[in-house]
Amino acid sequence: MDPGRQEPLRWLLDREQIRDVVNAYCRAVDRADLDALLDLYTADGIDHHTGFDGPVTEFVPWLRERLPALAGTQHIIGTHISEVHGNEAAAESYATAVHWAEPTDDPERNYISGVRYLDHLVRTAAGWKISERWAVREWAVTTAGRGRPLSGGHAASRTAADPLWDLLSAVRGEAAAPSPGLG
Amino acid sequence: MDPGRQEPLRWLLDREQIRDVVNAYCRAVDRADLDALLDLYTADGIDHHTGFDGPVTEFVPWLRERLPALAGTQHIIGTHISEVHGNEAAAESYATAVHWAEPTDDPERNYISGVRYLDHLVRTAAGWKISERWAVREWAVTTAGRGRPLSGGHAASRTAADPLWDLLSAVRGEAAAPSPGLG
Amino acid sequence: MDPGRQEPLRWLLDREQIRDVVNAYCRAVDRADLDALLDLYTADGIDHHTGFDGPVTEFVPWLRERLPALAGTQHIIGTHISEVHGNEAAAESYATAVHWAEPTDDPERNYISGVRYLDHLVRTAAGWKISERWAVREWAVTTAGRGRPLSGGHAASRTAADPLWDLLSAVRGEAAAPSPGLG
Repeated sequence: MDPGRQEPLRWLLDREQIRDVVNAYCRAVDRADLDALLDLYTADGIDHHTGFDGPVTEFVPWLRERLPALAGTQHIIGTHISEVHGNEAAAESYATAVHWAEPTDDPERNYISGVRYLDHLVRTAAGWKISERWAVREWAVTTAGRGRPLSGGHAASRTAADPLWDLLSAVRGEAAAPSPGLG
Repeated sequence: MDPGRQEPLRWLLDREQIRDVVNAYCRAVDRADLDALLDLYTADGIDHHTGFDGPVTEFVPWLRERLPALAGTQHIIGTHISEVHGNEAAAESYATAVHWAEPTDDPERNYISGVRYLDHLVRTAAGWKISERWAVREWAVTTAGRGRPLSGGHAASRTAADPLWDLLSAVRGEAAAPSPGLG
Repeated sequence: MDPGRQEPLRWLLDREQIRDVVNAYCRAVDRADLDALLDLYTADGIDHHTGFDGPVTEFVPWLRERLPALAGTQHIIGTHISEVHGNEAAAESYATAVHWAEPTDDPERNYISGVRYLDHLVRTAAGWKISERWAVREWAVTTAGRGRPLSGGHAASRTAADPLWDLLSAVRGEAAAPSPGLG
């Protein structure tokens, strides 16, 4: 986990860009921006999730079918370690995945699960991409009947209404292009 | 989310310093170090929180009035993505905010909420500052009646008694200066 | 929390390597790789945990005795701030520690606790090491009776069966060497 034989600046850039891939996955799934999600994997990328094992090109439609059953998700990255070996890398990222839906006492759709993402990444002309991901399951607890009502303030959305897209447009000086999401 | 036209070392420094601003907010609010919190925003910075919308100069007294109702808070940063465009930047940071108080079965003051901080930042002579923040609400669950008693070990504090300040003094070789906090 | 008098690339490397130490602790304890854990401290390193205060050489056997009472743990790093002063550094890292065990309604062994790790680190010829750590306690909630059964997919393990070790071997082009763990 130190630069080893890598040039230090190159090592820092590789690690920062790998961190970005792992974090961008969370934004993509939580905003239901599934085109962005697909772009994080190589064309022949593989994903092993609880309930799914196969090519990412099939994982995306699988997700697209399942996300509407939930009102929202938040995939929270924690502990993260990567190591780079030439044009390949491994990353371990802890993720706490929060799922919520109406009715809030439905235990099948109101729960928090702890997983570890194990990513095999490869360096491509378009940056680091996931060639294979394992979502290793650790724990899960139900939040059914424990939800607190939310009101006021700014609400999250899986559509272009989420405040993220206006912020990105303002800073980029151009329209951000959220995918149609689930709106 | 790659350096784009930025010089790579500059890009890494910008991102690390933006990460610091986001993390320093958590230390400031959790240690009740509200002078430090104010310093993270531009002089005319704006904050949009659930229950508050306005200038940070009013947000700080609003917080100062509300924090004593809680025994403690912990604002836990997770997934974080920033992008830099010249002297402006956008950052999205997932935060899990844990709130606790006596009696531990009071649902209004014992809960965990999931938000996303969306920050518009600007580069100033004193480093990156938040010019506008939106706290976008995602989910909340009550922990009322689920608290476990804590005892032994080192307890957190919002005063100069927190072990953080002695550690910082030791490493800096000078007295750290915690704000008076709520002590 | 800016480079100050440090050379910027050196500062970024120091911070990245300190982040690695903090994250590697989590991997070590969660995979029960206690030799790796010991290696993160200086030879005379000290740890202050709830229930333990003393040299890391005694902390490791203390952990080795207690881990088997739990089916698993996940130590999730969140908010993290470090500062470097020459050959010393201080790091504050929020950690959410998830503990689970059978039976899942046992409140003593099914809970989530929030702590802050305060680390005094020193630069050594073998990289940054923890010379003293305080685990400051913040909050704890029980998850007894709230666990959701897990099935299918890839399960985590404290032995060489965890998928992490095969991934590391593949990327390193050599056998990864998990410690015997608790298997």
